[in-house]
Amino acid sequence: MARPSEDELIATYFAPLAGPGAFGLRDDAAILAQKPGHDIIATKDMSIAGEHFFTDDPPGAVARKALRVNLSDLAAKGAEPSGFLLGLALPEDWTVHWLAGFAQGLGADAAAYKCPLLGGDTVKSPGLLIVSITAFGTVPAQKMVLRAGVAAGDRIYATGTIGDAALGLRYRVDASHDSQWTKCVAQADAAYLAGRALLPEPRLALREALRAHAHAAMDISDGFAGDLAKMLGLTGMTAEVETADVPLSKAARKILHEAPSLLETILTGGDDYEILCSVPPSHSAAFEADAAAAGILVRPVATAMPGSAPPVFKDTEGRSLAVARPSFQHF
Amino acid sequence: MARPSEDELIATYFAPLAGPGAFGLRDDAAILAQKPGHDIIATKDMSIAGEHFFTDDPPGAVARKALRVNLSDLAAKGAEPSGFLLGLALPEDWTVHWLAGFAQGLGADAAAYKCPLLGGDTVKSPGLLIVSITAFGTVPAQKMVLRAGVAAGDRIYATGTIGDAALGLRYRVDASHDSQWTKCVAQADAAYLAGRALLPEPRLALREALRAHAHAAMDISDGFAGDLAKMLGLTGMTAEVETADVPLSKAARKILHEAPSLLETILTGGDDYEILCSVPPSHSAAFEADAAAAGILVRPVATAMPGSAPPVFKDTEGRSLAVARPSFQHF
Repeated sequence: MARPSEDELIATYFAPLAGPGAFGLRDDAAILAQKPGHDIIATKDMSIAGEHFFTDDPPGAVARKALRVNLSDLAAKGAEPSGFLLGLALPEDWTVHWLAGFAQGLGADAAAYKCPLLGGDTVKSPGLLIVSITAFGTVPAQKMVLRAGVAAGDRIYATGTIGDAALGLRYRVDASHDSQWTKCVAQADAAYLAGRALLPEPRLALREALRAHAHAAMDISDGFAGDLAKMLGLTGMTAEVETADVPLSKAARKILHEAPSLLETILTGGDDYEILCSVPPSHSAAFEADAAAAGILVRPVATAMPGSAPPVFKDTEGRSLAVARPSFQHF
Repeated sequence: MARPSEDELIATYFAPLAGPGAFGLRDDAAILAQKPGHDIIATKDMSIAGEHFFTDDPPGAVARKALRVNLSDLAAKGAEPSGFLLGLALPEDWTVHWLAGFAQGLGADAAAYKCPLLGGDTVKSPGLLIVSITAFGTVPAQKMVLRAGVAAGDRIYATGTIGDAALGLRYRVDASHDSQWTKCVAQADAAYLAGRALLPEPRLALREALRAHAHAAMDISDGFAGDLAKMLGLTGMTAEVETADVPLSKAARKILHEAPSLLETILTGGDDYEILCSVPPSHSAAFEADAAAAGILVRPVATAMPGSAPPVFKDTEGRSLAVARPSFQHF
């Protein structure tokens, strides 16, 4: 199939995803929708082939993950998505088939999350594929939930389960090298973990509970241990975490039973896109109730206390766990 | 020098550039400043090493150009810059020295254009360096100057001079191959053209005149001929352009005298970051006066008329010029 020009490409694949203020993707800029009494917030996460996804991942999933990691940031801030800009750098060997799949996945999620495409830029990449998304959201004025805000005595909560995506990625790499631990993993569990790595679930349903009850929040992208240290450190806090309190999926529990050393992968591997938040004890019952009503699993993992050291992780016998690298390092 | 971690890098080089709403670059999202009675507009342009700049360009200039091409979009829409997000994908071999120069250039322009850094994302690139900027601006409500709006009889204006950047890039490539035409170019002219390619001047001072008088506007990034066709085509217009009316710098005039075939490079090479706009005849005197008062050179280049064909270019003897590729093709 002949490849379209840039204008044809935009008109065919991306213009159908355009929302109000996007001028059909035929202008230099988009107007962001404003909501009276609300702040507009913006966040930006880049996804690069080979770093953030595998080059042979399905194109629709690449698009959806690139959007969802941005929606996850909006969720952690208590915001409602309102639209996004797409920067797409296509390598020399892009195909119409790949692009059609990419646009289809992107459109499905843009519709599902009511987050229309507002504009962007499409360029040629001399290297690998790059997806650079800027997402916008609205939040009642001055109610954005900040990262800096944990107070002494706050309960720290995590949503969902931790480590699934990291185990999924690790499984994919280790299974190709015939690693021992991968042989004990049931096929259904491997598929579940792979799915968690491929397609995170932004916890947008939690946004009202966060705004009503949380002192601070962030999404977990670079690893539970490192992101916890980051959030606590901003206000001079630390914590002691019993690893048994870290919420794990059944698949992760089974793997940990077979290969206890993978606890570090779970705690530091990242790509969770769960939310970490701190809630004062007086609000914790209401927060748990509101989260349950919103259908989001939340679990207390620690209590914040003053201190400059990174959080300590203890096993069931009370032994401290040495975490070599608390979070995924980008460099 | 040891390379800093991602957090150190952000704290050292980018946090000093952070504006209000950026939370010192330590949060997942930024709050965009709102101005009563104004719309917030957003634009996104990516810059990739080897495509949009040379890998050995000074890092400060790479940063400034990446920001300025976005400011140029805001200028064309009649907007005032209010801030930007920076996506930076650093290749394996990045150095602290390079990054310090990049941040310094970025900071200088952020200050000069009152456009503070609001947030972003820093990642590792398995390929080349990528700078992905999303810039925000404010414009009085419903006064954004659109690309679609040219009416029959409108005068089409261009700011500044056309083709300098394209000639500068062409000179750089051709001089390294000892091309004949490059030998006639005075050193000062070569330096002027190189400077125009390295560092465009966003025509922000024109924004009030555009809002007051223009039916339509866009910035010229992909080539004068192609961008003119794009703007006219949106409302079923075309035009006849006498090439003698296209505003050229002295350097470009001299080169064209020696090498007339370079007219096509001038008209289609792109990277001008001048503004193309359409003004009804009843406003043209006022537009010219307001532009002059703002210190921006504007020149009428054609008159819009109904028609579906791309604009025709005619030389001084009235002969039509065949333009092989009306604009820079990204693919």
